[in-house]
Amino acid sequence: MSESPQALVVFSPSGKRGRFALGTSVLEAARELGVDIDSICGGRARCGRCQVEAVEGSFAKENIVSGGDHLTPMGEAEQYCLQRGRLQPGNRLSCQAQLLGDVRIDVPATSQVHHQVVRKDYEVHDIELDPVVHLYFVEVEEPDMHRQAGDLQRLERALEKEWGLTGLSCDLRVLQDLQPALRTGRWSATVAIRNRQQIIAVWPGFHDQAYGAAVDVGSTTIAVHLCDLTRGEVVGSAGSMNPQIRFGEDLMSRVSYAMLNPEGAAQMTRAVRQAITELIGRTADQAGIDPADVLEITLVGNPVMHHLLLGIDPAPLGTAPFALATDHALEVWASEYDIEVHPNARAYVLPCIAGHVGADTAAVLLAETPWDRDEVSLIIDVGTNAEIVLGNRERLLAASSPTGPAFEGAQISSGQRAAPGAIERVRIDRDTLEPRFRVIGGERWSDDPGFAEELTEALGDQRITGICGSGIIEAVASMYLAGIIQHDGSFNPAAAARSPRVEARDRSFAYLLHEGEPRIYIEQNDVRAIQLAKAALYAGARLLMDHMGVDRVDRIRLAGAFGSHIDVTYAMALGMIPDCDLAQVSSANNAAGTGARIALLNRASRDEVERRARTIEKIETAVDPNFQRHFVEAMGIPHSTQPNPELSKVIDLPEKTKTQRAPRGRRRRRK
Amino acid sequence: MSESPQALVVFSPSGKRGRFALGTSVLEAARELGVDIDSICGGRARCGRCQVEAVEGSFAKENIVSGGDHLTPMGEAEQYCLQRGRLQPGNRLSCQAQLLGDVRIDVPATSQVHHQVVRKDYEVHDIELDPVVHLYFVEVEEPDMHRQAGDLQRLERALEKEWGLTGLSCDLRVLQDLQPALRTGRWSATVAIRNRQQIIAVWPGFHDQAYGAAVDVGSTTIAVHLCDLTRGEVVGSAGSMNPQIRFGEDLMSRVSYAMLNPEGAAQMTRAVRQAITELIGRTADQAGIDPADVLEITLVGNPVMHHLLLGIDPAPLGTAPFALATDHALEVWASEYDIEVHPNARAYVLPCIAGHVGADTAAVLLAETPWDRDEVSLIIDVGTNAEIVLGNRERLLAASSPTGPAFEGAQISSGQRAAPGAIERVRIDRDTLEPRFRVIGGERWSDDPGFAEELTEALGDQRITGICGSGIIEAVASMYLAGIIQHDGSFNPAAAARSPRVEARDRSFAYLLHEGEPRIYIEQNDVRAIQLAKAALYAGARLLMDHMGVDRVDRIRLAGAFGSHIDVTYAMALGMIPDCDLAQVSSANNAAGTGARIALLNRASRDEVERRARTIEKIETAVDPNFQRHFVEAMGIPHSTQPNPELSKVIDLPEKTKTQRAPRGRRRRRK
Repeated sequence: MSESPQALVVFSPSGKRGRFALGTSVLEAARELGVDIDSICGGRARCGRCQVEAVEGSFAKENIVSGGDHLTPMGEAEQYCLQRGRLQPGNRLSCQAQLLGDVRIDVPATSQVHHQVVRKDYEVHDIELDPVVHLYFVEVEEPDMHRQAGDLQRLERALEKEWGLTGLSCDLRVLQDLQPALRTGRWSATVAIRNRQQIIAVWPGFHDQAYGAAVDVGSTTIAVHLCDLTRGEVVGSAGSMNPQIRFGEDLMSRVSYAMLNPEGAAQMTRAVRQAITELIGRTADQAGIDPADVLEITLVGNPVMHHLLLGIDPAPLGTAPFALATDHALEVWASEYDIEVHPNARAYVLPCIAGHVGADTAAVLLAETPWDRDEVSLIIDVGTNAEIVLGNRERLLAASSPTGPAFEGAQISSGQRAAPGAIERVRIDRDTLEPRFRVIGGERWSDDPGFAEELTEALGDQRITGICGSGIIEAVASMYLAGIIQHDGSFNPAAAARSPRVEARDRSFAYLLHEGEPRIYIEQNDVRAIQLAKAALYAGARLLMDHMGVDRVDRIRLAGAFGSHIDVTYAMALGMIPDCDLAQVSSANNAAGTGARIALLNRASRDEVERRARTIEKIETAVDPNFQRHFVEAMGIPHSTQPNPELSKVIDLPEKTKTQRAPRGRRRRRK
Repeated sequence: MSESPQALVVFSPSGKRGRFALGTSVLEAARELGVDIDSICGGRARCGRCQVEAVEGSFAKENIVSGGDHLTPMGEAEQYCLQRGRLQPGNRLSCQAQLLGDVRIDVPATSQVHHQVVRKDYEVHDIELDPVVHLYFVEVEEPDMHRQAGDLQRLERALEKEWGLTGLSCDLRVLQDLQPALRTGRWSATVAIRNRQQIIAVWPGFHDQAYGAAVDVGSTTIAVHLCDLTRGEVVGSAGSMNPQIRFGEDLMSRVSYAMLNPEGAAQMTRAVRQAITELIGRTADQAGIDPADVLEITLVGNPVMHHLLLGIDPAPLGTAPFALATDHALEVWASEYDIEVHPNARAYVLPCIAGHVGADTAAVLLAETPWDRDEVSLIIDVGTNAEIVLGNRERLLAASSPTGPAFEGAQISSGQRAAPGAIERVRIDRDTLEPRFRVIGGERWSDDPGFAEELTEALGDQRITGICGSGIIEAVASMYLAGIIQHDGSFNPAAAARSPRVEARDRSFAYLLHEGEPRIYIEQNDVRAIQLAKAALYAGARLLMDHMGVDRVDRIRLAGAFGSHIDVTYAMALGMIPDCDLAQVSSANNAAGTGARIALLNRASRDEVERRARTIEKIETAVDPNFQRHFVEAMGIPHSTQPNPELSKVIDLPEKTKTQRAPRGRRRRRK
């Protein structure tokens, strides 16, 4: 062998190199050297996944002169792929191109089996593409009376011979499709195999469509990202309101509905499953694919959403001791959830962590991986309950805090969900007490020129309808900074003399934020509701810090829609979150959805999140006296009467509050 | 410990013995000694499975005086079991009775975990009870906010603690039932676990009902045996015609129906599944149980039945190369077959062996275990095809022979299925050529007094309607023995002179077997059909013998309804089966059904049959020139012109045939 003429081939970016007999295909050389090159068709010039580029030039280090002419010229198969757009101009199929001389071969990321899928959210590592479902093209022996073996057994033999897959099992529905598939495909077929173990689908001949859906079931909205399992890209995204809203705005009202109506839970289960099917259908339309090519689904949601989705009664989650039916991950047929995709697609539901800390939090953790850091991260997902995780490489603790729905705009006099027409940002001038604000749907502030016109164009006649969670937080914080309310949350009677916007009411005051139709006020009760909610959130975080034995966190990540809308400065001014370098407080954006996508694209991540969910320390806030103490102490605005050096860097804090006495509320509650 | 007073306990039948502190329960002692005692409730005096008998008397060998008074007296729990019939009078619950003195304890077979289930079919070993599904009663911790764990996780903890079960997974539907079950059962529940691995059912509190159905899907009839999985007994049996008969009498006409009608296969699939559900319902009614307590099903059938049952197109089985979709065993949810039992019950389908040797043959082998013997067994299951297995401990070979449906009474002028009114046994007097016969539905021969009355009573007006497979075989053999037909199968013209029952026809003759309404004749074409069928069967057996290198078999087992009706002497006289000591030729009765029952009750048997099915040598008759040679040579009656010493022992063979020349048919076919 060593006497036949050989060529040197050097692969980048791996740097692997070796000498091979002339005529060896680039793919063979790559496999022999352990260079990671993708393939569905197994070297038959069909899938285009193995394409590479021959780099032109002299390379002193490698001591070679490389060029495309050191490979055999393009044949018919490659020309065909080129015409069909499966092969990039200038690239070659490594299964077809054979060595004629020394050559340097560049393997583009998209041709690598385990390539990195780039995540848009900053600061966090990319996803390594290694989904549970893979496609394999095979040619199967025709049946032979003299060597009898079933179609499935001959398929399995081909999978073993061509792809090294052994010990496979097979869904009944695949078996029902197998005979016609093999015969239509003239004894060639593509199979989808899950976990290198289970044959879940078969198509005649060559098939390269395999998709997955990452589904984030929120109480308010449901979001679906459709991903190409062979490339890792998101090919379609869609969201809709959770149709369960008609049974109850917030989680507890849905649990009540389930408890009061015998068919209630089943109705809500049907509604959410239909919505998921519908959204997957929409993303498939966007991508121009067949929903039957969706072969895997991942699902995340809080515990109540999780139970309703699974068809499990959520009633036990409504009362102490808040027992989950299961906190482990689940894997079932999507058809068991009545989700209409490929009939053998599996749905993977991430684990729940505790009674109020759900699979959504597990997904947030998978996206954030606080376990990879030495710094202590505080990760907060705000909803009807705030789900809070604290920790680092050493330890992780989780709790949920009963913030109530005020942060979602509920129980606020002019409150509403974050939707077009809602005031989302608020500033108040400290001298004039005049507000300025921004509304969802527009880019301009209310004192910018063209504000009204922009809004009218965006929203039509409807215009400003209320104030959403982030708006109310900024409003209350700004009212404090402007001296309209005091540290204990009560209106400062002196403010009424400074501006007609502070109106005296029967035994109280209200601040007129917007003089339109409807008028939008911030009332004393609204301030109280926000105080209660933020005190609960702060107390939950503090309790975890106590358990971990730290009095400071290194970074804070705010997950969810709320976290991406809020101005962290005002959140800290309000005393929602513990003190922290403001530069280290940031939004985790849609971390739950990202976590669902990671679990879809990388199978090792499932083991990771299951393992972490088991070892995380669960802290129950409801029965902890320290939680009560923190809660009462955190009622004031801001949370502490001590100066906050972090905030002082960016906001001019009112001097007098720094020495103000504790609020009445605190004293009353303490007895 | 050794200083506290102790008692000697001796268990029979195991003979295990040991000393234990007074106050030790008999169950604890048994477990410590490794004595096999059953329990569902885990020692809580609920299930009654652990009952034993304290034997009274002096035992010199054991050197003890034993008696019931050497145990603590019966308490309330045992009295309750006694009243409910769960405890036999005189027995004690070993979990309750504690040692007070030396005692000899007898563990009845029904209290042993792996007790032997007695089989009625002679000559074959009993079944060791070890089903895939077991019940376990557990008490589960109540949920606790301070130590959060899902209901499922606490259930799993209890199963680990009380029963040593780990690494369990759980069906989604169990999870949906789990919360109400635990709460209704006040944190106690019984779970059904499959393969010590999968939780498939949960009931509140104590539940001791677990059943399985062994289903034998024949082309003509479907039979179901309902078994108690905790005791091994058959508690109900039912059979019905296979409703697919309306789509075609025999297998090939059903395959044709499927090929000619787009919905044909689906229609037949629905029909057979409905019939199975209906039969299981009937057996459940017989036993007075809820079909939802049926937790496991085993299914056997020939390849066409197998495919139709599974919803797989049988068309490829209709033409060469007769490719099966799969020859491996399958395990799916019974609900995937639309069989209405417990929604999580699994159905296990035994493996097929080859294109025409199906899961029914695999079941026959499981019942017969030819692999346990040194002698060479020939096992024959006669249907539209004869499925033939030959072998012993060393080697096993299988083939199917295209006998056609003549043995089932089809293609015979007066033929019919084996059903009331069919002539099933025939003898012909060698001198007078007068026949005597027996009819299905009656016990008497036609020349017995009261024959007509008995039949009228049994069958009403309908009476004798035709001749079935076993009848036609005996008729043809008897006609040969009486000299009515000759070695080559043609009528002996001289016979017409001897009796008016031999009637001359246009170019041929016919024998009048029964002069009623309708008249029943055996015509020349009927003889030819039987000759073709028996030659095929014989040639198949010979071909396997050639492959194995033997010219004689040690024993022959005839499986199926046909095998249990036929008189083996006449089968051998006709030349259906190779020469063999007649004492070693016997019926395997309903071996396929027995095999299905074994697979239901003993999980190791599944591995065994899967392993054997893979290693069995498949011989294809259709394309083997030696098969053609044997077939042509076996057309004569009996098969050989050589004297048959076996037959000579029991029947007086006509002298002249022994030297008769080969039949014309043979010569013609040989060219």
